[in-house]
Amino acid sequence: MLEKLKKEVFEANLELPRRELIKYTWGNVSAIDRESNLFVIKPSGVDYDVMTADDMVVCNLDGEVIEGELNPSSDMPTHAVLYKSFKDIGSIVHTHSTWATIWSQAGLDVPVYGTTHADTFFGPVPCARHLTEEEINKNYEHETGSVIVETFEERNINPNEVPGVLLHGHAPFVWAENAEKAVMNAVVLEEVCKMNLFTLQLNQESEHLPNRILNKHYERKHGENSYYGQ
Amino acid sequence: MLEKLKKEVFEANLELPRRELIKYTWGNVSAIDRESNLFVIKPSGVDYDVMTADDMVVCNLDGEVIEGELNPSSDMPTHAVLYKSFKDIGSIVHTHSTWATIWSQAGLDVPVYGTTHADTFFGPVPCARHLTEEEINKNYEHETGSVIVETFEERNINPNEVPGVLLHGHAPFVWAENAEKAVMNAVVLEEVCKMNLFTLQLNQESEHLPNRILNKHYERKHGENSYYGQ
Amino acid sequence: MLEKLKKEVFEANLELPRRELIKYTWGNVSAIDRESNLFVIKPSGVDYDVMTADDMVVCNLDGEVIEGELNPSSDMPTHAVLYKSFKDIGSIVHTHSTWATIWSQAGLDVPVYGTTHADTFFGPVPCARHLTEEEINKNYEHETGSVIVETFEERNINPNEVPGVLLHGHAPFVWAENAEKAVMNAVVLEEVCKMNLFTLQLNQESEHLPNRILNKHYERKHGENSYYGQ
Amino acid sequence: MLEKLKKEVFEANLELPRRELIKYTWGNVSAIDRESNLFVIKPSGVDYDVMTADDMVVCNLDGEVIEGELNPSSDMPTHAVLYKSFKDIGSIVHTHSTWATIWSQAGLDVPVYGTTHADTFFGPVPCARHLTEEEINKNYEHETGSVIVETFEERNINPNEVPGVLLHGHAPFVWAENAEKAVMNAVVLEEVCKMNLFTLQLNQESEHLPNRILNKHYERKHGENSYYGQ
Repeated sequence: MLEKLKKEVFEANLELPRRELIKYTWGNVSAIDRESNLFVIKPSGVDYDVMTADDMVVCNLDGEVIEGELNPSSDMPTHAVLYKSFKDIGSIVHTHSTWATIWSQAGLDVPVYGTTHADTFFGPVPCARHLTEEEINKNYEHETGSVIVETFEERNINPNEVPGVLLHGHAPFVWAENAEKAVMNAVVLEEVCKMNLFTLQLNQESEHLPNRILNKHYERKHGENSYYGQ
Repeated sequence: MLEKLKKEVFEANLELPRRELIKYTWGNVSAIDRESNLFVIKPSGVDYDVMTADDMVVCNLDGEVIEGELNPSSDMPTHAVLYKSFKDIGSIVHTHSTWATIWSQAGLDVPVYGTTHADTFFGPVPCARHLTEEEINKNYEHETGSVIVETFEERNINPNEVPGVLLHGHAPFVWAENAEKAVMNAVVLEEVCKMNLFTLQLNQESEHLPNRILNKHYERKHGENSYYGQ
Repeated sequence: MLEKLKKEVFEANLELPRRELIKYTWGNVSAIDRESNLFVIKPSGVDYDVMTADDMVVCNLDGEVIEGELNPSSDMPTHAVLYKSFKDIGSIVHTHSTWATIWSQAGLDVPVYGTTHADTFFGPVPCARHLTEEEINKNYEHETGSVIVETFEERNINPNEVPGVLLHGHAPFVWAENAEKAVMNAVVLEEVCKMNLFTLQLNQESEHLPNRILNKHYERKHGENSYYGQ
Repeated sequence: MLEKLKKEVFEANLELPRRELIKYTWGNVSAIDRESNLFVIKPSGVDYDVMTADDMVVCNLDGEVIEGELNPSSDMPTHAVLYKSFKDIGSIVHTHSTWATIWSQAGLDVPVYGTTHADTFFGPVPCARHLTEEEINKNYEHETGSVIVETFEERNINPNEVPGVLLHGHAPFVWAENAEKAVMNAVVLEEVCKMNLFTLQLNQESEHLPNRILNKHYERKHGENSYYGQ
């Protein structure tokens, strides 16, 4: 079942430590088949040395396991909510990567200071609020997804244009049309979070990137008039 | 004698440079056999290139060498005191890992700013006081252990729930039920120390993680109702 | 056509990730043949795993493709303008290397605090201004080159003595007489940007390197009386 | 001539990039034979890929080349002065390692904040003054050595107990009884410089390590009553 997608998800999970986004098993990648509305996700807490593509778990958009011997990542219900609400995304990555987690812990949106950011995220990356006591007791991981969706709706941000979010006190979730690109977007967010922190330290009066350059760089790589790549 | 434990301790010591927790031989791991109350520890200042599992030294809880040709780590008496007082722990790691040592040098407890911390340490990681002249002259390494125990007793911290400590002006000691997990806890402390320093730099008003989220994350991974992993 | 130069440019591009100046394909190196006034540049967005020396694209100083199946780097017109104006340079490197990008985002010139800087750059590395709306709409990449040239002319800086520039809100361009040295200069700029940021943090009153030492170190390595190397 | 020493110096030079103390060829190690008062040093600016032990250059304490086809490191006269004045040292290392260079650029002594420092350096590591115009014009590298010696004499520091120095606006020189230990001391200084910078950032009121602990840790590893190692 979904053998090709399992392999892509497995490979993308292995890419997380290679790209220094995680230590041990502190992260998870999933990807969805939009025809069947089933998604494939990493099992919970399995060593990467012994994990195989066949260990990937298949779930539906209600957060139920459809196939797999192992427990899925404990964050699985968050992924399900995101796939349900953000209808164009094909893959989700969650990590505790150092610099994105620092911004999450500081509870701040990531502002746009440069073209490295603008090439991938069309505006600031928002930081979603802490969950309430009630939300935690209800279904923590499911409600985490709902708070992310609320953040994008309330602020009127398009998740296709800003493919990532920080959870206050926790860490980032990042997405894209497929697993390889979702990991790449997580790498971009991590690098941007590092650079922006030190940009502010070097010059507290650093200017945000002017909109005219944000637009130009985002449009070089995205949409009808893009001309980056082959 | 204790061949299996020697091998585990040897392997855990080799893991320290791999996880970038130490340079050269600046660290030591031990593990205890609770039936015989004997523990196995790395020898002092031996190059990792030539060290073998058979070089591990066996000691008792009074800090006496029971078996081994080589001198044990000079920090061995600290390990003995911790095993005697913290009766549930199975392994101890001491390193001068960069970021945990920075917090030690600054003489500050590590506050809880995020779930990376809460997944492993159920509250702030305390910083123990400097030793007095008298304590240094008596038996420096033994008294170091006593000051750690004093810290946990006076502040009423459960060493099973907060498995690590910083020594003011020195570096961290970390523990767990076995050597592999003790190294993993040392990796977590190191990463948390790095992230928390920059969290504070990015936002001096950063909020501590709300208790409701600290509780939720610690309980996801520990105790009867944990549901992380397989 | 220009087979030897293609190979040098190809090798120099591969050196960028090895020297940790770029992630993925976020950079480009070119080199010029001054006899034919044609230059060779990396194609746009091609994975380094599959890229070969034959994929390099040949262009002229008007920014037109002369030979090659693939689209050249989208920054190609910037390279063309620089080769046209800076007549002694043989190779150009563009990266988003972390610390040089941080100074670019902060919009600051890189001052001379030490001999590591003085060995390669004979004075501060300037930060060029943002492009205007009009310049962006005209020909963004071509105008980027023009703004660099304007910066060196207005400030009366010799591009042979200060072989690099920061673009405000973007990242560095660095050059040299050949591709290997251009990459080396990019490494120097990256290291200097890191060191200078923390020099300022450690001591806000840090003195600029006295001119007598700047002169001495630059002259040890450059010009008629240099005596570094073989 | 001095084949064994050449091999040790060659190996120690290769260790510099492995320990991430240098990039390219930005460093040099020498070692002295105290019987003949000749020392062996790395040639200037030779790629590590092609350099062999036979390329090492033999010099005397007046800074004259005694044997060798290649030019010695341009810093050679500094080494000669140090060997002449500091009669117990056997090897010298010069690097532009990142964090020690940052303290050099900031023009500050490295204070003692922890036992990592105290295990190797018995007190603060001094920062030597800039050279005067006259000193630079006379013989820059020779006078650099003289300023280091002046620093230790004026402040009454024993170079055997504090085996390193920072040059204001430049970088560190470090030494020991042999080449392997000199490189190790350079690693310690680099790590201490990193940790102390962030210790100060984390807590501007950080206390210097009390003398009683400085003494204890230095004596654990040095002198008659040391008990570290085998």
